[in-house]
Amino acid sequence: MRRELDIWVVGGDQRQACLAELLAADGHGVHTFALERAGELREVAAEKSLEGLELADCVILPLPALGEDGAVNTPLSQRRLALEEVLGRARAGQAVCAGRVDSASQALAAGKGLVLHDYFAREELAVANAVPTAEGAIQIALEELPITLHGAKVLVVGYGRLGRALAPRLAALGAKVSVSARKWEDLAWIEAAGYAAEHTGELAGWLCGYDLVVNTVPARVLDEEALRDLKPGCLLIDLASKPGGVDFEAARALGVRAIWALSLPGKAAPVTAGQAVKSSVYHILNELGV
Amino acid sequence: MRRELDIWVVGGDQRQACLAELLAADGHGVHTFALERAGELREVAAEKSLEGLELADCVILPLPALGEDGAVNTPLSQRRLALEEVLGRARAGQAVCAGRVDSASQALAAGKGLVLHDYFAREELAVANAVPTAEGAIQIALEELPITLHGAKVLVVGYGRLGRALAPRLAALGAKVSVSARKWEDLAWIEAAGYAAEHTGELAGWLCGYDLVVNTVPARVLDEEALRDLKPGCLLIDLASKPGGVDFEAARALGVRAIWALSLPGKAAPVTAGQAVKSSVYHILNELGV
Amino acid sequence: MRRELDIWVVGGDQRQACLAELLAADGHGVHTFALERAGELREVAAEKSLEGLELADCVILPLPALGEDGAVNTPLSQRRLALEEVLGRARAGQAVCAGRVDSASQALAAGKGLVLHDYFAREELAVANAVPTAEGAIQIALEELPITLHGAKVLVVGYGRLGRALAPRLAALGAKVSVSARKWEDLAWIEAAGYAAEHTGELAGWLCGYDLVVNTVPARVLDEEALRDLKPGCLLIDLASKPGGVDFEAARALGVRAIWALSLPGKAAPVTAGQAVKSSVYHILNELGV
Amino acid sequence: MRRELDIWVVGGDQRQACLAELLAADGHGVHTFALERAGELREVAAEKSLEGLELADCVILPLPALGEDGAVNTPLSQRRLALEEVLGRARAGQAVCAGRVDSASQALAAGKGLVLHDYFAREELAVANAVPTAEGAIQIALEELPITLHGAKVLVVGYGRLGRALAPRLAALGAKVSVSARKWEDLAWIEAAGYAAEHTGELAGWLCGYDLVVNTVPARVLDEEALRDLKPGCLLIDLASKPGGVDFEAARALGVRAIWALSLPGKAAPVTAGQAVKSSVYHILNELGV
Repeated sequence: MRRELDIWVVGGDQRQACLAELLAADGHGVHTFALERAGELREVAAEKSLEGLELADCVILPLPALGEDGAVNTPLSQRRLALEEVLGRARAGQAVCAGRVDSASQALAAGKGLVLHDYFAREELAVANAVPTAEGAIQIALEELPITLHGAKVLVVGYGRLGRALAPRLAALGAKVSVSARKWEDLAWIEAAGYAAEHTGELAGWLCGYDLVVNTVPARVLDEEALRDLKPGCLLIDLASKPGGVDFEAARALGVRAIWALSLPGKAAPVTAGQAVKSSVYHILNELGV
Repeated sequence: MRRELDIWVVGGDQRQACLAELLAADGHGVHTFALERAGELREVAAEKSLEGLELADCVILPLPALGEDGAVNTPLSQRRLALEEVLGRARAGQAVCAGRVDSASQALAAGKGLVLHDYFAREELAVANAVPTAEGAIQIALEELPITLHGAKVLVVGYGRLGRALAPRLAALGAKVSVSARKWEDLAWIEAAGYAAEHTGELAGWLCGYDLVVNTVPARVLDEEALRDLKPGCLLIDLASKPGGVDFEAARALGVRAIWALSLPGKAAPVTAGQAVKSSVYHILNELGV
Repeated sequence: MRRELDIWVVGGDQRQACLAELLAADGHGVHTFALERAGELREVAAEKSLEGLELADCVILPLPALGEDGAVNTPLSQRRLALEEVLGRARAGQAVCAGRVDSASQALAAGKGLVLHDYFAREELAVANAVPTAEGAIQIALEELPITLHGAKVLVVGYGRLGRALAPRLAALGAKVSVSARKWEDLAWIEAAGYAAEHTGELAGWLCGYDLVVNTVPARVLDEEALRDLKPGCLLIDLASKPGGVDFEAARALGVRAIWALSLPGKAAPVTAGQAVKSSVYHILNELGV
Repeated sequence: MRRELDIWVVGGDQRQACLAELLAADGHGVHTFALERAGELREVAAEKSLEGLELADCVILPLPALGEDGAVNTPLSQRRLALEEVLGRARAGQAVCAGRVDSASQALAAGKGLVLHDYFAREELAVANAVPTAEGAIQIALEELPITLHGAKVLVVGYGRLGRALAPRLAALGAKVSVSARKWEDLAWIEAAGYAAEHTGELAGWLCGYDLVVNTVPARVLDEEALRDLKPGCLLIDLASKPGGVDFEAARALGVRAIWALSLPGKAAPVTAGQAVKSSVYHILNELGV
């Protein structure tokens, strides 16, 4: 990667604002657009139009790239910004990075001779995000539980990236940690790490001992039968992306405290989350030879 | 200790309400007074007067025993309750426990043939309280910092009970932990535990690298000179009881974010805090032969 | 899996002897052959011939199945036992398990209507073996180093199963741990776990600070150039299976203390290693419907 | 402390040899006597007589100062060296440090206008030595047990310096750790650290579940009754100095494997142990104003 690139950061939340500052602190020339409400950013030029974007070495779109309205995701801006508007400005072959890119956006870009490089699809970003997600889950547990995590009985459902980041932190805080998984291999890792191993497919009937259950599996693992088994006062935190792993309707009906915590990295630690995006963008530029 | 004692819990906050339920869950007959706003407590008799208190095997007053107005500390009650009122009901020689007892209260009790057994003065309670205090401090740090504790540079000032509970938890969450102390012995413990050791008397000039500083020493260790040395955005949490260890006026003037977090156990984890009081009360009763 | 199976354990070292006792303790009928020098095993029938082996629900051959002489690996027996001898006794379709099976053995078995189910090829066994391997490496380091692991600067080369089992244990003992890897994803995990991350391809020139280097990568990563870079007194432990990751000839010439530690699980903790084989055999029988 | 002191290291084992090298590496002028068999030491002058000792800024005698024969403890020397011989050479008021000084030696020194400053009596040395002692105990456990420490049930008797250094290391290696103590305060610390708490006075009857018991209490806590309660194969390591905490005669009679491991720091990690002595000697010189 060359030093002192010209980079545009377009749209996004506080995490992208932090990203812009971090890129500037690395010595790059950084422009932002549609981040007005982030306040003044150190060493960053807040642009009023997209003019000049075509000269950039790299354009960085937010995570997720599009909001619910189908336009670029710009929660820190008043204006609606269509993806076409940005891509229309870009030059063919320009390095454009974006988070969680859908196929329609990718097709739109292809029509303009562009590839949207999805930094969120990179495994190293997912790993890096597991840490702030784990810390965010711990924060929620500390806020909500009337007991200490020290001595609490906790079940982590799933031993993928999130489970592997969360379980050791809970254990280090003194919780009695069980982790559930389905594969022999994962169950062996759970035991090698010193947690009690449970089988995710056989949770109902074994849940009544826990003070806290954290789900990390994006599949309906905690259905009504499982929820009925929880002890009164047990806190349920669901970290799985949509559709989530908890039957929230049943939870409400049963009076189970269930919190669906999404996008924790950007909320709990925007600077750290911005650093993770920065690293992945650098890896992409490195691979593109920029 | 005999099973099935008759116990009165008089006044106090949510922690004492939890204490009452925990004592009842152990099989004792439990009465509460001046805890109306705690809501209904399981297996506990909420009394409307102090009648019958003299029959109790043990009376438990709150922590602290007296509020700022000099009466019994009853934040969950509408009524003002003078200490004399309670002691006037008690019978000479009755086991009366209370938290943080001042000498005037002790003298008042002596006049009625009573001793106020201070559970807060017991070392094992102080140790047990260090855990919820540490968790409360971590909760504040997670809420306030825009970076993860993972990778954050943290200084813990003091290596007494709080420092010893806090430092390993921060380290386990991935923070780079330094701890300061004054005695060779404590410095040796800090190194044996794997933290960087600093000298509490020589902090000014060495503070600019930290993202978080947590004070546990009840003496003005972070004066204006030290505060000037903190890097912008550094978060300061003071866990020391009054008068605290931070010059808060200087902090305000310098724009340093400083949070004085007192009484964390009762706030962050009232059930756990209630359990700790329960254990100490049992130890007192054990030693009294009740 | 049915209870009370009839199982033969044929050949092997102390680990297989422990396996036989563990299977018997689970309630199975267990026979051993070619394990005479293991001494008397609790609740196990030591057989003098292979007669009756064809009646077994399961036959377990050692790890590795064959010794250097091409016969069954029987270090605890006087007699040479050809694989044909055992397979000739087995009945077609019988469940035969073995460790590290080569293709010639598999072909021989196929000719007799048998499949050699390789328990060593199962990921869960490899994971389970990582723990005793890590403990064995720590034992060697404790024995060989004149300094404590506490405070020692340690490099773990590779972040596969062994690296992931070893690094947290070294860190927990107070070592300053760096881990090297090649993939962005692994480097992200290394940072998420709190270690310093190095690139395995660029070690030479960065090795002079370490007191201990443990290699887990089965490729020549520590060549003469790298070895020249080690500081005097640095200890080198190679956990990689043949051909190993260290140029041992160069190490000898340079006076570098290098220890090639193979098959640690069976040596360091035969009971635990036997338990791991037992679990994997159970998983195989479960999948075969035995 | 002034830079470049003139220091004599007289007698002792490998630890004192390391101490001499470490002092030289700090820039001091270092002489040794009665350490011939330690081999050549870097930057250190090996003296053939005590001539010139009276000019030293500091004389350092070994730990313990005297051997079993009543003379200076000189295991790395052929010659017997009476304490009088050394003290006779010293000048009145000279800074003389020694380890584990008995009253007879102190009296002898007083007669010559000298004080023997006992570095072993300093709390910070005892704390620093707890780390190599804990590592030495772990090394023994790894060598002796046929199971991994991971998953092993371990009891640490006593929660003083050694217990506090040992318990977290065992737990970090995956052992299920119980710790026994007598005081409420220590029991509270044990629970705050996340271990199961037992009462040292009530061990008999509760010992049968452990795979490893490590005693740190210098009193006969593991008598015949307790030893009878251990399960077959349980390993017993006694770290307590004489008279030790185990009835070794009963252990032998009962077939209990019991290892009395003394002076582990000097044996397991002489460099680290030498560093600890160096720090304490510096603290003494600092307090003496040398």
